[in-house]
Amino acid sequence: MPNYQVTFKPNDLSVAAAEMASLLEVARKAGFVLSAECGGQGTCRRCKVKLLSGGLFIAGEQNLSDAEKAGNIVLACMARIDGDVTIELLPESELRYDPGAADRDLEPQEHPGYALKSLGLSLTPLVSKANLDVPPPTLENSVDDYSRFQTSFKKQVTDKRIETPLSVLRSLASEVRQADGHLAVIYAEEADRIGVVQAVHEAKYMYGLAVDIGTTTVFVRLIDLADGKILGEASDYNAQISCGGDVIHRIVYAGKGKELAELQSLIQQTINKLIKSLLKEHKLKKDAIKIVVAAGNTTMQHLFLGLDPKQIRLEPFVPTVTRIPVVSAASSGLDVLPTAPVFHAPSVASYVGGDITAGLLAAGIHRSEKLTLYVDLGTNGEIALGNKDWLTACACSAGPAFEGAGVKCGMRAAPGGINRVESDATDGILTFQVIGHVAPRGICGSGMIDLLAELRATNRITPRGKLNQEIDPRRIRANRGKQEIVLVKGDNGTGTDDIVLTEIDIDNLIRTKGAIFAGIMTLCKGVGIQPQEIERVVIAGAFGKHLDVNNAIRIGMLPDLPRKRFEYIGNGSLQGASMALLSQRMWQQTQDIADRVTYFELSSWPGYMDEFMAALFLPHTDGRLFPSVGKINVR
Amino acid sequence: MPNYQVTFKPNDLSVAAAEMASLLEVARKAGFVLSAECGGQGTCRRCKVKLLSGGLFIAGEQNLSDAEKAGNIVLACMARIDGDVTIELLPESELRYDPGAADRDLEPQEHPGYALKSLGLSLTPLVSKANLDVPPPTLENSVDDYSRFQTSFKKQVTDKRIETPLSVLRSLASEVRQADGHLAVIYAEEADRIGVVQAVHEAKYMYGLAVDIGTTTVFVRLIDLADGKILGEASDYNAQISCGGDVIHRIVYAGKGKELAELQSLIQQTINKLIKSLLKEHKLKKDAIKIVVAAGNTTMQHLFLGLDPKQIRLEPFVPTVTRIPVVSAASSGLDVLPTAPVFHAPSVASYVGGDITAGLLAAGIHRSEKLTLYVDLGTNGEIALGNKDWLTACACSAGPAFEGAGVKCGMRAAPGGINRVESDATDGILTFQVIGHVAPRGICGSGMIDLLAELRATNRITPRGKLNQEIDPRRIRANRGKQEIVLVKGDNGTGTDDIVLTEIDIDNLIRTKGAIFAGIMTLCKGVGIQPQEIERVVIAGAFGKHLDVNNAIRIGMLPDLPRKRFEYIGNGSLQGASMALLSQRMWQQTQDIADRVTYFELSSWPGYMDEFMAALFLPHTDGRLFPSVGKINVR
Repeated sequence: MPNYQVTFKPNDLSVAAAEMASLLEVARKAGFVLSAECGGQGTCRRCKVKLLSGGLFIAGEQNLSDAEKAGNIVLACMARIDGDVTIELLPESELRYDPGAADRDLEPQEHPGYALKSLGLSLTPLVSKANLDVPPPTLENSVDDYSRFQTSFKKQVTDKRIETPLSVLRSLASEVRQADGHLAVIYAEEADRIGVVQAVHEAKYMYGLAVDIGTTTVFVRLIDLADGKILGEASDYNAQISCGGDVIHRIVYAGKGKELAELQSLIQQTINKLIKSLLKEHKLKKDAIKIVVAAGNTTMQHLFLGLDPKQIRLEPFVPTVTRIPVVSAASSGLDVLPTAPVFHAPSVASYVGGDITAGLLAAGIHRSEKLTLYVDLGTNGEIALGNKDWLTACACSAGPAFEGAGVKCGMRAAPGGINRVESDATDGILTFQVIGHVAPRGICGSGMIDLLAELRATNRITPRGKLNQEIDPRRIRANRGKQEIVLVKGDNGTGTDDIVLTEIDIDNLIRTKGAIFAGIMTLCKGVGIQPQEIERVVIAGAFGKHLDVNNAIRIGMLPDLPRKRFEYIGNGSLQGASMALLSQRMWQQTQDIADRVTYFELSSWPGYMDEFMAALFLPHTDGRLFPSVGKINVR
Repeated sequence: MPNYQVTFKPNDLSVAAAEMASLLEVARKAGFVLSAECGGQGTCRRCKVKLLSGGLFIAGEQNLSDAEKAGNIVLACMARIDGDVTIELLPESELRYDPGAADRDLEPQEHPGYALKSLGLSLTPLVSKANLDVPPPTLENSVDDYSRFQTSFKKQVTDKRIETPLSVLRSLASEVRQADGHLAVIYAEEADRIGVVQAVHEAKYMYGLAVDIGTTTVFVRLIDLADGKILGEASDYNAQISCGGDVIHRIVYAGKGKELAELQSLIQQTINKLIKSLLKEHKLKKDAIKIVVAAGNTTMQHLFLGLDPKQIRLEPFVPTVTRIPVVSAASSGLDVLPTAPVFHAPSVASYVGGDITAGLLAAGIHRSEKLTLYVDLGTNGEIALGNKDWLTACACSAGPAFEGAGVKCGMRAAPGGINRVESDATDGILTFQVIGHVAPRGICGSGMIDLLAELRATNRITPRGKLNQEIDPRRIRANRGKQEIVLVKGDNGTGTDDIVLTEIDIDNLIRTKGAIFAGIMTLCKGVGIQPQEIERVVIAGAFGKHLDVNNAIRIGMLPDLPRKRFEYIGNGSLQGASMALLSQRMWQQTQDIADRVTYFELSSWPGYMDEFMAALFLPHTDGRLFPSVGKINVR
């Protein structure tokens, strides 16, 4: 098959591509991450690009407007290379990650070492270092290097069985001699054995890596094992995004053929890119990183390890593994010390993963007397409820609407995203806050929640989510038989579209918030408590940072509790992984948490569907659950 | 740098080569194994080739005769590519392996399973198979696949800790479901844990591989784990030969730069080629082979695993490791089931390796009341002495003279090699037996021993190894001031050289046989016995097959004992590896043997040098040690 040249504007990057290759894949291989929440099915319309010149074959029906078609807009996932071609990448399609204020100085209490100290725990990282005296061999006692090493270790450190990878043995002879008998040994201790990680004449740097493998975003934290301080943190979109926006689309994508290997490679690339940037920033070599602790949801864990995730979405929803064996960084495809062990926070079930276990660890729910609700508002919506005596958890299959999927002008929290909305108490005029000093491009999760709350408060939408054109005829209009509200008028000059919220969007958002609240209610009823009894609510996850808790209650997403019971812990998964990395006790507790959590599989849970139906209302069909949510101010 | 074309005749194979590349390396990369006992130093003269046309640069002094130079003969190791070139490979330089009568039917008692049966042992291979019932998951009990697998295994097989490689986990979900709950599990049991090798819905074939990694020759045996029978055997030269003829030259070669990786790759290639041929012959896929047990000398073990062997030849002669950890076939670079464990017979010291441990196991010395001498006549000369109560061993640094190195017309046992020599009792006329139906090309080890014995018996050489021209003026002549005896006249028509034995050759052979006998004497004296007390002598190793024991005694290489005490066990290393593969008890015994052997480091052993000097005589300076060796028949 012939190869054609594909040129991407505005970067002017040219790559070769085979005839009939998918433009989405060509772009991905060229390093551009295009949104593709539907996994390249042609339905989510996120991978729009502009054809500037050349040959494309469109392999199916494109869900595009006449204006878009006239403007040479195509969906990359539907387009196949059919000649040399020049493509313009559109800002709304290409995911450019904005880590926000990444370089701020951390407060002392944000370091995981501090968190451990405040719990009265000392630093006992999952890898230890020993300074070992290995006697030189003599003609009279010409015992091999590894035997002398083992004897010294058993005598000077611990007499557990020692396992040593070939790569450590390969350099043992020269390291023992360079060390002049004083060897630095890095090792991981398990129940009944020692896994040697490194045996060198000098081990100057002792760092660890905590990784949060999110469906949307990946966070990597470089931690000094000596003091538990964070040296640096880096994050980026999970490059798998262009294979599907949520775990279900990823699982479907993985089932196509060799795509499981592709997904595995994409997440490895994402993590390695972040590792590389951190190492460069801190002028370190990769061998400085002696251990990795990763936390991710069950699907991300499977994709990272190349385990077939198919059964996760097939009844009875069983993953291959929840307690992942510790394997080396080399086997995991991570660019750190090749023998560094990679630990994965254990998952509970197919839809309550290691990210939740780690988050519960960070939030300390399992240690607390207080009845605590843990809500992770990530790409999936996971909820846990419990205290030191018992733990329950479920996943709401809320879907990533708050990350922009299924919402016409929805987007992730990135420059141009409307992230806060307020309405004037007297005239109801809406004011928007936009991320970055740029013109608004869409609405992100926290903005959607504010918007729903404000539109309901001003009666622009009904409790059932219907737009009420009479209230605001200037903004609310019909478009092809469907109502929508215009938030920001487009600019004909620059060709930008109106930013709108449609009744379909509102419906999706109500279903999402309803799923979360129904999950909370199901856990409460399952254990026989009233939501009012919840003493503490911990919000975790990416968009929790911008979340207005009051508005989340006003739309009926979170239970109507005194606002001071709510707290935001940021990336609980990353913090939990960091704490487990630094403390053998904490690592053991992640196992205990995973053991103790009772999992509610909502798809088959009796009563969940009723709770969900009851929650498809703003705030709820049972108003008594939301006593503080005021009457509508009808003007 | 420019690339040139190098064409090899008579095969007419052309390859590209960089300017100034070594012709020896170019030939090796093209797949031709040239002899290079000296490791490419230009001294052994084994890599002679003929320059037919084109440009070669000679990078040093070539040890060639004027006639050779005039005939465009060059040493490949000294030649550098300096233009397009055409080379003729000479039959005496290129190693073409002749496995001999490989396809003969085995006698029942040759199968390792039979050997175990005769010891009253049942078959307990180092990997076992269990048929496991794994219950399906349900919505009520949606436990992950691996947890259900582990629970079933602990309940139905053994409750040891289970370790499972990622690659097994990767297919677990689909195998469990295809198996409909009845899973075939292949596993290796260690002291306190289970290593899962395979978990599949069907495991039809259960084969193992025993490998003897010799310095010169590699043997691979395919064994049915169900009945202990040999399905097939294959052997070939170790492709490392063109990097040096013995372990010392290989170690030197490994120390040059990236050559350790090259040597590792060469031995992996040799073994994989043999595996491939066996699999093809028996119409098997590589996954049929579930386990490998390898035996090799300490240097071969190091090179196979990529461990730096440097210290093996530096005082105090300490290897990196003698008890090699079990690693997977994938990590070992072997093309069998990637998760198959690879076991290595433990070595005792730098010069008494796993091949000797395995050989002692096969010979059963450690079980026997009889005082037994074990002599491995391989490329190195290792000797062991002992019985069920004690074991000793040493290496003689005999050198590979019996494999042709350092002997002008010496060669390995291959077609054209003179392997038996007799002299007529009355007229002393020498008659030769040649391997294969071809003209003689040189003398191989067993022929050299016969020759020494017959030349001494007919007084053609003195007890000190000097040629006696008066006895046989027709054959014995002076050549450049040195005496030599012509065995076969060359043919001027075909241009072949005379086959001769020189006084330098005789000197080398006497040093070699002397080293072996001195080793035997040192072990005897070390433990306080007389050689006459030895009740059994086991000869192992490649050229033992053709060895005339009587002649070996007549030249003073082996002790003068009743001939019926001698037996030849063939490839003891391979047989020992096969037995260990099939029996956990036997595997444990290889460890016990390695633990129990007392190693004599001869290079620093007091008295060894005296023994050696005393043995540089035919048969020995102390004639009382060889009472049965008759007087010289002087004609």
